[in-house]
Amino acid sequence: MTPRHSALLPRLARTRRLLRGAALCLAAAIAAPLAVPAHAEAPQVKTQVPGFYRYQHGAFEVTALYDGFIDLDPTLLKNTSQAEIQRLLAREFLAAPKMQTAVNAYLVNTGSKLVLVDAGAAKLFGPTLGFIVDNLRAAGYTPAQVDVVLLTHLHGDHANGLVGPDGKAVFPNAEVRLAQEESDFWLSQANADKAPEDFKPFFKMARDAAAPYQAAGKWKPFAGETELLPGVRAVAARGHTPGHGGYLFTSNGEKLLIWGDLVHNAAVQFARPTVAIEFDTDKTQAVRTRQKIFAYAAKEKLLVAGMHLPFPGIGHVRQDGKRYSWVAVEFGPLR
Amino acid sequence: MTPRHSALLPRLARTRRLLRGAALCLAAAIAAPLAVPAHAEAPQVKTQVPGFYRYQHGAFEVTALYDGFIDLDPTLLKNTSQAEIQRLLAREFLAAPKMQTAVNAYLVNTGSKLVLVDAGAAKLFGPTLGFIVDNLRAAGYTPAQVDVVLLTHLHGDHANGLVGPDGKAVFPNAEVRLAQEESDFWLSQANADKAPEDFKPFFKMARDAAAPYQAAGKWKPFAGETELLPGVRAVAARGHTPGHGGYLFTSNGEKLLIWGDLVHNAAVQFARPTVAIEFDTDKTQAVRTRQKIFAYAAKEKLLVAGMHLPFPGIGHVRQDGKRYSWVAVEFGPLR
Repeated sequence: MTPRHSALLPRLARTRRLLRGAALCLAAAIAAPLAVPAHAEAPQVKTQVPGFYRYQHGAFEVTALYDGFIDLDPTLLKNTSQAEIQRLLAREFLAAPKMQTAVNAYLVNTGSKLVLVDAGAAKLFGPTLGFIVDNLRAAGYTPAQVDVVLLTHLHGDHANGLVGPDGKAVFPNAEVRLAQEESDFWLSQANADKAPEDFKPFFKMARDAAAPYQAAGKWKPFAGETELLPGVRAVAARGHTPGHGGYLFTSNGEKLLIWGDLVHNAAVQFARPTVAIEFDTDKTQAVRTRQKIFAYAAKEKLLVAGMHLPFPGIGHVRQDGKRYSWVAVEFGPLR
Repeated sequence: MTPRHSALLPRLARTRRLLRGAALCLAAAIAAPLAVPAHAEAPQVKTQVPGFYRYQHGAFEVTALYDGFIDLDPTLLKNTSQAEIQRLLAREFLAAPKMQTAVNAYLVNTGSKLVLVDAGAAKLFGPTLGFIVDNLRAAGYTPAQVDVVLLTHLHGDHANGLVGPDGKAVFPNAEVRLAQEESDFWLSQANADKAPEDFKPFFKMARDAAAPYQAAGKWKPFAGETELLPGVRAVAARGHTPGHGGYLFTSNGEKLLIWGDLVHNAAVQFARPTVAIEFDTDKTQAVRTRQKIFAYAAKEKLLVAGMHLPFPGIGHVRQDGKRYSWVAVEFGPLR
């Protein structure tokens, strides 16, 4: 652990308390009975459509998978005033006291490999998350079919869907790939020992996620911006965590960058890319990385996808002077 | 038929030819084999998620239903240059030669009545439309449960889903409500007789849609901006057709305006509300109505839904100086 990283641990401990509070409030809200019961001859159905969305990308079939959502406190956003954050949220008609934050993963069938990018939170952050496997099945696949899991980083809402409550591998036939720096940081016993008590669980989550894959010889960190599979390349995007990165999928000349946690709140951070989040291990580096990738994506009209963008989280970045905007792809059948 | 309306018939005949061409191209595109076959152990699934989306609106359960899409030619848009239209489409990363245009309908379960607003196109405009009933069933309802169909207007892509290929009522237990002016205009034998040959089919479509409901005494036009059901009020929005209108759903003090065809292309018409479409019976009145409702919706932060907005087509209108922007609601479970 670098001094820079260990200095941030107390702040992350506060973050953890905020998250825990949010999850408890949500559980209570979901369990509450409806104020007005349905009296129609046709009762209100109340279920939502399955949380997947298919998108054809060259010869690759991309399936966005919805793990669920978590409500985050706007005070987690840093580098600007809370008044400015509230103004930016209201501009997108997001008036609630908390920020509904999606957690997405992406399943890419390249035609030769079935690749899952991130695996969601399982049930570690409350009952409103942990639906990746349900939605993967709804989308016509099974966990046993997944050949490779690519992790953008080792935070619990991305990696802990790798393991079941029994500690076993949810994707028994998959190799897990991630940046060497990310694996080294979170799996280090020395880093865990040095961490404040309230922050140690983050290291434990990472170790729990890795354990069955390590035991099976399927935990395979990589170095640098390497080509991992035909048409699939790692892209470093450091700052949010020490080894945070995205994956660039290229097929028939078309490019899709799945960028992990480059953005935590679309309403705020496209308009103000300098806004960081408490979860960033290195906020300065995270901001610099976001600015660089936004500029590149806008200039190249790159198709991008992100784990906390509004589901399905696939779209483009538009530059409007010094600000950016998120332009989601339009719903439709595969064409 | 007023002189203003009959003068526009030749233009509408051209529109019909454009639509027919678009439908044929789409059928060919859908039938074409994929260039690169899938070789994965897990074959590419290729299906899309069902086309429904649930939204809780006070005590009303709203279900957006996707009828499908049709590709429209940008030259159908009027009152600005084609260069400007292409620039506005490109700004939303819509670079294709045609404009993919959704057709939506909305099912509102008020708790005492199951209300369908518009019914889609059936198969009159090609194979990429006509999925309202499939998606209504996927959403957990049956056509026989629908108590009332509210029509925004009598164009084929809104009304012809009322009848099956056998000419029978698809919603056998439903009353059909629409503005008296709309019913009078399209069901008038005199108007149909006066219409140019190429335009007569539009009148026939309207008569076919109405026939089984008229025969059963269930075709019930209304006058003015009347309250049709508790919490459901007609809102006149004339111009697109002589009796075009929306419906305002109010529950627990929350308002949702389902505005029919106030917008045909979100990328163009929010930025330039003065842009009309060839289908508008009275373009001047249609523009005036759009400007008035945009201003009201933005000022009141009104939740709105529209039949040609990107599916699910539920969201808000933001005013940015003289322009407007479309802000879609974020995907999520019912809360």
